[in-house]
Amino acid sequence: MSVLIKNTVIITQNKKREQIHGDIYIEDQEIIQISKKPITIEADYKIDGRKKLVLPGLINTHTHIPMTLLRGYGDDMVLKRWLEERIWPVEKKLDSRSVEIGTRLGLLEMISSGTTTFLDMYFFEETIGKTTKEAGLRAFLGFPLIDFGTPEYPYDELFPRCESFIRKWRKHNLVRPVVAPHATYTCGPETLHRSLEMADKYDVLLHIHCSETREEVYDVQKRYGLRPIGILKKHGLLCDKIVLAHCGWITKNEVFDIKNSGSKVVHCPVSNMKIATGGYTPLPELLHSNIAVGLGTDGAASNNTLDMFETMKFCSLIHKHHRWDPSILPAQTVLDLATIGGAKCLRMEDKIGSIEEGKKADIIMVDLKKPRLTPQHDFVSHLVYAMRGCDVIATIVNGKPLMLENRILTLDMDAILEDAEKCAYELTAA
Amino acid sequence: MSVLIKNTVIITQNKKREQIHGDIYIEDQEIIQISKKPITIEADYKIDGRKKLVLPGLINTHTHIPMTLLRGYGDDMVLKRWLEERIWPVEKKLDSRSVEIGTRLGLLEMISSGTTTFLDMYFFEETIGKTTKEAGLRAFLGFPLIDFGTPEYPYDELFPRCESFIRKWRKHNLVRPVVAPHATYTCGPETLHRSLEMADKYDVLLHIHCSETREEVYDVQKRYGLRPIGILKKHGLLCDKIVLAHCGWITKNEVFDIKNSGSKVVHCPVSNMKIATGGYTPLPELLHSNIAVGLGTDGAASNNTLDMFETMKFCSLIHKHHRWDPSILPAQTVLDLATIGGAKCLRMEDKIGSIEEGKKADIIMVDLKKPRLTPQHDFVSHLVYAMRGCDVIATIVNGKPLMLENRILTLDMDAILEDAEKCAYELTAA
Repeated sequence: MSVLIKNTVIITQNKKREQIHGDIYIEDQEIIQISKKPITIEADYKIDGRKKLVLPGLINTHTHIPMTLLRGYGDDMVLKRWLEERIWPVEKKLDSRSVEIGTRLGLLEMISSGTTTFLDMYFFEETIGKTTKEAGLRAFLGFPLIDFGTPEYPYDELFPRCESFIRKWRKHNLVRPVVAPHATYTCGPETLHRSLEMADKYDVLLHIHCSETREEVYDVQKRYGLRPIGILKKHGLLCDKIVLAHCGWITKNEVFDIKNSGSKVVHCPVSNMKIATGGYTPLPELLHSNIAVGLGTDGAASNNTLDMFETMKFCSLIHKHHRWDPSILPAQTVLDLATIGGAKCLRMEDKIGSIEEGKKADIIMVDLKKPRLTPQHDFVSHLVYAMRGCDVIATIVNGKPLMLENRILTLDMDAILEDAEKCAYELTAA
Repeated sequence: MSVLIKNTVIITQNKKREQIHGDIYIEDQEIIQISKKPITIEADYKIDGRKKLVLPGLINTHTHIPMTLLRGYGDDMVLKRWLEERIWPVEKKLDSRSVEIGTRLGLLEMISSGTTTFLDMYFFEETIGKTTKEAGLRAFLGFPLIDFGTPEYPYDELFPRCESFIRKWRKHNLVRPVVAPHATYTCGPETLHRSLEMADKYDVLLHIHCSETREEVYDVQKRYGLRPIGILKKHGLLCDKIVLAHCGWITKNEVFDIKNSGSKVVHCPVSNMKIATGGYTPLPELLHSNIAVGLGTDGAASNNTLDMFETMKFCSLIHKHHRWDPSILPAQTVLDLATIGGAKCLRMEDKIGSIEEGKKADIIMVDLKKPRLTPQHDFVSHLVYAMRGCDVIATIVNGKPLMLENRILTLDMDAILEDAEKCAYELTAA
């Protein structure tokens, strides 16, 4: 399959952060040519790129995709009550079918809002894999490991199932397995050790919640005499293949530990603010230490969208606000987090995260012809401060168009919306 | 003119905050009938309301509308440098023509994102009035008063011009004049006194920036021995006709003063965070004191949009984050601020801000058939946490459709976008 986009502006996100006015040609999985001069080759899809931007697909490095079904179900509640009264009772009722429906809804939302790659952690991850493969997104799927088992498997079965999951997906082109011990307050030393062993054996990523809330940090410290980062360090998990979600309650010394170990961090500003974790992910310090940082939406239940454009704006503004400094987290830095930063978290920076010849063709297009995006003093400013997912008109993953001219090509939108509405109703009915 | 919307969900924002599943009929300027049973009357426009919500038009109680031209021009800069290097040099070049173009762009953005009423303060307010009247929005337009004059008039001419402005617009149906002394650091006692006199003489609103930044508060205190709220109190401006923008640096005692005087407050969370004023508008305390509070976007130069849906989400989340309490500023409270709260700030709560029979027909419709808005556990949650201006498909002001089925009816979008692009280029060219 080939795609030619003509007369557009390409926000390359390459090392020089060049913006190239010209044409871009994609063939099979790859970006073949970027040119300031017209490219005249024939292509399966030829797209007029005027008044549009082409940029790397956004990378959502922390989500729980089937939780789309719980979007808006229990907002404005204190975390403990929210989990106990709303989230956990529903999660107990989950099965492969409902996870499939919720996943499809999430995939639809991501495709239509310009996310091309995501890092997930949820139950029934095998179902999520199958559904994602059908839809055509690039995904890193965390098989969840937790001391008290999951709604899918008792603890005894978790590691063998995790291993089958890894074996099944490790050679897949787009869907890759990840070992996901849930958190240090839900995974004791044995689970952590076995997780690391598994990740090492197959050289796959580890993904874990880390220092999201104050309560978590102090509970873990009380139980083990160490804070979550200390626990991970002690058991060898603080290493270059782990992606730490949140890090809202970490210390300066922990930033050094993260840096020295090559661990990666995901910042989820919208979810942290909505759940009111009170924490503050020290992004300026993390970036100053050259730590790979990505952005995540977290699950739709605590966001309530999977819109990475919104997450970029929240990211920039919460840090400016916190430091009383409007020059902190400028637009270009935030766009970097959502593209090449995410790619680095996933050890994929040689393949995705920027638009360069030879890289995988994960690209999106946004429409500029809107009052909210006029005038155009600065495209990067618009991407971070004025755009939303709804401005995305085309989403291409690995060279394959998943959405063109706002039309979703790999999923049946009407059917998915209907199924999701029904399924959500069933799950939450008394 | 008459409009009938069938089979919809009406988020009334009436005293009981009812959500009515049914029909709504509008004739001339008014909401004539809301009914759970089918209304069968003939109408000029008949709209299918299935899978849509009808709600009161949003009220943006603080903006500088022509600043749309400076959207994205100088982000991520420290306030003083931003003003001195970017904003003020351009504002010096403004004339009636550029203000008209910037206003039209802002009106277009507001109509298309569901704002039906706004409170403005900028130069060339007469031009803004004329342009707003043509477009059909409801507006309260602040004539700016400032010790060193405006780009339009020297100080000597300001008050006579202000008086003409008031006389011209005070009886207008939709566009109403407001007296707008800029702030206590730019308006000395004489300007404040004369502003109050003028507002009293014609019984119109006063609008002023108040305690937006820490520097402002301490500068004013140093100069006059009083903080901004103290200055306003001393000179009699702290009264039930003043609308105070920002109040990010106010004390508990100042909250009492605001309450006792009947003054109104506008909260602009996105702008405050982006400019990094560091302040915190004490919304829970203001609301607990039954002070009328509205929401504002501020100018597009510091936001960078005029999207009140986005402002609602930022409002809820920044307060949850600040107080470590997810139950603070729940969705319903925030929707109240953007509708009936704004109406109270403008002393218009008997006419706008909710959907009730006999009220003015300022209503908008949003489309629910989207992945991001599925499933529908809670409409109000969606309005605050998941919607954006781009979900608005119809905007009706005073019974007149300004947008239907996403088509703008009173403005020429293509021409405005083109004019704005050119004008912004001219203004910022060296």
